Amino acid sequence: MKALVLEKQGVMAIRDMPIQGEMGPDSVRIKVKNVGICGSDVHYYTHGRIGQYAVKEPMILGHEAAGVVEEIGANVKGFRPGDRVCMEPGIPNGKSRASKLGLYNLDPDVVFWATPPVHGCLIEEVIHPAEYAYKLPETMSLAEGAMVEPLAIGIQAAKKARIVPGDVGVVIGAGTIGIMCAISALAGGCSKVYIADNKQEKLDIAGSYDGVIPINFTKEDPLKKVLGDTDGWGADVVIEASGAPAVYPGFADYGCPGGKVVLVGIPIDPVPLDIAKIQAKELDMASVFRYANIYPRAINLIGSGKLDVKRLISKTYSFEQSIAAFKHAERMEPDVVKIMIEL
Amino acid sequence: MKALVLEKQGVMAIRDMPIQGEMGPDSVRIKVKNVGICGSDVHYYTHGRIGQYAVKEPMILGHEAAGVVEEIGANVKGFRPGDRVCMEPGIPNGKSRASKLGLYNLDPDVVFWATPPVHGCLIEEVIHPAEYAYKLPETMSLAEGAMVEPLAIGIQAAKKARIVPGDVGVVIGAGTIGIMCAISALAGGCSKVYIADNKQEKLDIAGSYDGVIPINFTKEDPLKKVLGDTDGWGADVVIEASGAPAVYPGFADYGCPGGKVVLVGIPIDPVPLDIAKIQAKELDMASVFRYANIYPRAINLIGSGKLDVKRLISKTYSFEQSIAAFKHAERMEPDVVKIMIEL
Amino acid sequence: MKALVLEKQGVMAIRDMPIQGEMGPDSVRIKVKNVGICGSDVHYYTHGRIGQYAVKEPMILGHEAAGVVEEIGANVKGFRPGDRVCMEPGIPNGKSRASKLGLYNLDPDVVFWATPPVHGCLIEEVIHPAEYAYKLPETMSLAEGAMVEPLAIGIQAAKKARIVPGDVGVVIGAGTIGIMCAISALAGGCSKVYIADNKQEKLDIAGSYDGVIPINFTKEDPLKKVLGDTDGWGADVVIEASGAPAVYPGFADYGCPGGKVVLVGIPIDPVPLDIAKIQAKELDMASVFRYANIYPRAINLIGSGKLDVKRLISKTYSFEQSIAAFKHAERMEPDVVKIMIEL
Amino acid sequence: MKALVLEKQGVMAIRDMPIQGEMGPDSVRIKVKNVGICGSDVHYYTHGRIGQYAVKEPMILGHEAAGVVEEIGANVKGFRPGDRVCMEPGIPNGKSRASKLGLYNLDPDVVFWATPPVHGCLIEEVIHPAEYAYKLPETMSLAEGAMVEPLAIGIQAAKKARIVPGDVGVVIGAGTIGIMCAISALAGGCSKVYIADNKQEKLDIAGSYDGVIPINFTKEDPLKKVLGDTDGWGADVVIEASGAPAVYPGFADYGCPGGKVVLVGIPIDPVPLDIAKIQAKELDMASVFRYANIYPRAINLIGSGKLDVKRLISKTYSFEQSIAAFKHAERMEPDVVKIMIEL
Repeated sequence: MKALVLEKQGVMAIRDMPIQGEMGPDSVRIKVKNVGICGSDVHYYTHGRIGQYAVKEPMILGHEAAGVVEEIGANVKGFRPGDRVCMEPGIPNGKSRASKLGLYNLDPDVVFWATPPVHGCLIEEVIHPAEYAYKLPETMSLAEGAMVEPLAIGIQAAKKARIVPGDVGVVIGAGTIGIMCAISALAGGCSKVYIADNKQEKLDIAGSYDGVIPINFTKEDPLKKVLGDTDGWGADVVIEASGAPAVYPGFADYGCPGGKVVLVGIPIDPVPLDIAKIQAKELDMASVFRYANIYPRAINLIGSGKLDVKRLISKTYSFEQSIAAFKHAERMEPDVVKIMIEL
Repeated sequence: MKALVLEKQGVMAIRDMPIQGEMGPDSVRIKVKNVGICGSDVHYYTHGRIGQYAVKEPMILGHEAAGVVEEIGANVKGFRPGDRVCMEPGIPNGKSRASKLGLYNLDPDVVFWATPPVHGCLIEEVIHPAEYAYKLPETMSLAEGAMVEPLAIGIQAAKKARIVPGDVGVVIGAGTIGIMCAISALAGGCSKVYIADNKQEKLDIAGSYDGVIPINFTKEDPLKKVLGDTDGWGADVVIEASGAPAVYPGFADYGCPGGKVVLVGIPIDPVPLDIAKIQAKELDMASVFRYANIYPRAINLIGSGKLDVKRLISKTYSFEQSIAAFKHAERMEPDVVKIMIEL
Repeated sequence: MKALVLEKQGVMAIRDMPIQGEMGPDSVRIKVKNVGICGSDVHYYTHGRIGQYAVKEPMILGHEAAGVVEEIGANVKGFRPGDRVCMEPGIPNGKSRASKLGLYNLDPDVVFWATPPVHGCLIEEVIHPAEYAYKLPETMSLAEGAMVEPLAIGIQAAKKARIVPGDVGVVIGAGTIGIMCAISALAGGCSKVYIADNKQEKLDIAGSYDGVIPINFTKEDPLKKVLGDTDGWGADVVIEASGAPAVYPGFADYGCPGGKVVLVGIPIDPVPLDIAKIQAKELDMASVFRYANIYPRAINLIGSGKLDVKRLISKTYSFEQSIAAFKHAERMEPDVVKIMIEL
Repeated sequence: MKALVLEKQGVMAIRDMPIQGEMGPDSVRIKVKNVGICGSDVHYYTHGRIGQYAVKEPMILGHEAAGVVEEIGANVKGFRPGDRVCMEPGIPNGKSRASKLGLYNLDPDVVFWATPPVHGCLIEEVIHPAEYAYKLPETMSLAEGAMVEPLAIGIQAAKKARIVPGDVGVVIGAGTIGIMCAISALAGGCSKVYIADNKQEKLDIAGSYDGVIPINFTKEDPLKKVLGDTDGWGADVVIEASGAPAVYPGFADYGCPGGKVVLVGIPIDPVPLDIAKIQAKELDMASVFRYANIYPRAINLIGSGKLDVKRLISKTYSFEQSIAAFKHAERMEPDVVKIMIEL
């Protein structure tokens, strides 16, 4: 069947590939319908590697997917052919100590789509463990289903923030993940969320959500704004979603006494933190690695209409145009949040 | 100055009363502008007592208030005359063990407006400790300010539920407090909230909020609905807001494994609980007594536009008509949520 | 191989039975060495059923076990023959929603030793999933290994109590599980734990632990004692481990404002709770159903020497004498905590 | 009355000073009996300042104190002359937003003994707010009472670690505060606590507690030891108590997936953290600034005999010898934990 294959750094092709894996009693076979392009997909294309993960063999790209169930294994309950589903791209060893604790995202043996040498989901059909496929409600499109994956990171961050209703939030960085964090924190109980960046187009998109307050830090001091609006108290929740080293020594300034910080951005090298400043407010700093048990939450939030992800789909390409889609994503246009491929 | 005085059970009068208390260095004097009528106010009027609290002397009614600062004490910072504020009606001993822990609502020495023998706030001016007065943002009216008190109970319940973003909520009982719980749980992170009652008018009001799903249990089985909509899993958060004894043995049926129950309704006598059923899901049951540290959260949520309380103000009376207002409230019309008095 | 079989209510036999289950790639085969007798084992013997679980076919008894690894499956890592282990008696479906959340004890499909129609472990050898077998450190005997199961319930209760270091605890009921709760709460951070019962022999055993304060309620009012010792504040943690209906309306009296209650005892019928009293202190009530992810904690606590379970083994019988052991357990002598069988 | 006065950097004198403050209705007057010497006291003596806090006027030293009540204010309940008490050295503004939340340690207006320009407690008598004085049980000496202050930091750290019973702990740094953290974590629910340092004398003292496992990192690799003892899983709780910059990039290596880090040590300058490494385990990092609501917990733990602080009092001096006591503390002998002054 047809797949989008990264042959090697800088070279993609749409070509025939066998279906990956084999149907077992606990599997479902799914016709892939929508795949969103993630920054990591583009990075493998442009750089051929992310850290230790190097593309040494041709690899099918894509890990943000939704589709339609074609076949179900003998033990599978709760699904039938024709069901519309989205799929979690990382499959842990369910018997590991981390998985038993409910922290399956932290299982070191997780097998994750489009992380070398594991193939991704930009292929006509995939075989998937049924427990990592999630039915979509009628109120939700397949394109929205493919948005669950990037949203899940935002919701994981919002969950880790242990938001109390009415909290004030701050998100630093308005990239795709920063926006996902902002809307998740808002849906997750914040009364309002400030988001700071220097790209006005991103801020305009983020600011289109009621309750998200964009701050262009080239024009306005975000710290002054947040402290001014809170009588100097600070924000209850600060989500670092930029990964920019310059942000780290100062993010504590945004937090209120007893506030919470969530570290989502991933700086490459160690970054400096001012421990004494963090301690003076007894800030609690949580960190995020993907997500676990978040898909049902994301589907609840999108399906109920509380959280709109449709406006974040900047452009949709057909599968045949998927190389063009990647080239579009590669340009990193400031007004693009998510490029979607439709199979 | 003029006050609405409950002379004794069944007898109210608008008459002159002295301002209560004395200005100290930490006080503010506030011109009262809006007071909502609470069920407890009506109950003192109709029954002359609530439990151990009996009206033995004439007592000014009212405890849900907003107003305008007239004068500030010598030590008071952060306020100036003309500021619009709402006021927390219960003043604890700040030196008590409970207060030091941040649980000032649980201080047994709390002095609470319109709880005999303490006078309430249906009087032209009140003197109040500055730390229990809260400035209203420009986006918020004084009438909305007076709604903060009943909303605060809902937010306290939502806080106690430790909502995780995307939770499914169920509220049992659509009285004023039940509605406050439902909209607080929704604003506080639930993806949707079912609310069950037998009064269609109340359900219609609750259901006017996007994400609140009303269930008239005289027409539809709420348990079947909730379990059906969640693939049999159940709700993450169940808020008991009816106080109806018949509800208690069965509320666990609504909860999901590891779910949370919040007990807000107050049954008069002990009620039966099925412990084994609760244990089979390891439900966690929190309970609510008024609120602490919730006013800033309520103001954030109303002020940011996330949570609309205006539609819950069913009718507004002038101070001169306040006895008529009480008689209206006493009728308990099913389509009335809150009767407001404007001074 | 030899097994202790409950033929039907009131009739036990030691006789040949085949090994249960089959070795798979993720299994270990274990030579059973120690099995503790639980009240539920005795109850199946004396009554032939517990609630809906009726003994209709001959069933091997026993679920509190430790042994020595004999054989390991192809995929199993971290074990080798000769390893001393204890085994978790309940095996969930690892793919269930509850298991994915880390709440595998709440999976309705759990298969549990010696719960009809599932055979137990009083047999020479068992085949077990490797991920539910736990290595014992050198500092720990196999008899202590068999004590992990009943202790795990106490630790689950202590975990649910979210103990803060220095908390004061109260346990109501000094049966085996009550004692397990008391020593777990103590090891888990309580400064001291009061335990109330009417059986002096049980209280003497509980009171032999430094920090456990026994109260014989036929001689002393436990509430007066706890409130007296805490300046009227109450206990931070109250663990109900009696299941006695008379306890429920009043347990809230022991708790401090903002305190926590853990429901461990299992009353057969619904019991009355005074909701208003619970609310006045905003008590949080958690509940316990077996345990999940507790075995490594129990092994840590016993293995480090912090928590002594040896003194709770009242008498040890050989496997040949196991029917006598059951008859001993059946007598419910007040100074007996745990009867152990050694294979 | 006599006081130990730091006249200026390097110059101390025992001389007459007036009692500080005035008796009010909520005060108690206390005869000071025991004062422990803290590193900060010594630092003011040797350096004349700590950060922004400079000794510009003569200042009475000391903030770790216990004594006997001499006089009580008109409103004070629960105390009478002759009561033995210890005193919390920091007095917040009880009306601040932080105090209302129960986070009174984070109130920026805290007035703290022996922090310029505020006088300390090395004086014959002090006047203190009653709500920050705590009665000692009969089982506890006044010298132990003076140990409550440094222990409180350890308990605050253990509380912030949200220890689950049976956790494995690691403390980095075996100074006075490191030892306090280790014994607090142990008493607070850890099954065992590793403590790493290069000073063998400190490690010997720490290791004298059952369950504290000292590691001299000049002789043994602590990371290898901790991972080896936990089958490579890591520690549930890591407490950084050294403040040594070199520790920060690597402390995450000690933590288990989902583990908790508590930042207690205070490095002067920003220190590098490896965020990606922290995220890979989703570590949660809490931070500590003094303590709030911990004194009753510390008293419970010492008073019940669960936590022994007596062995940490290395030497006791009379008040007349207090300058010699400071010179002893200044030498920082490796086998000295706490120097105590007895008045």
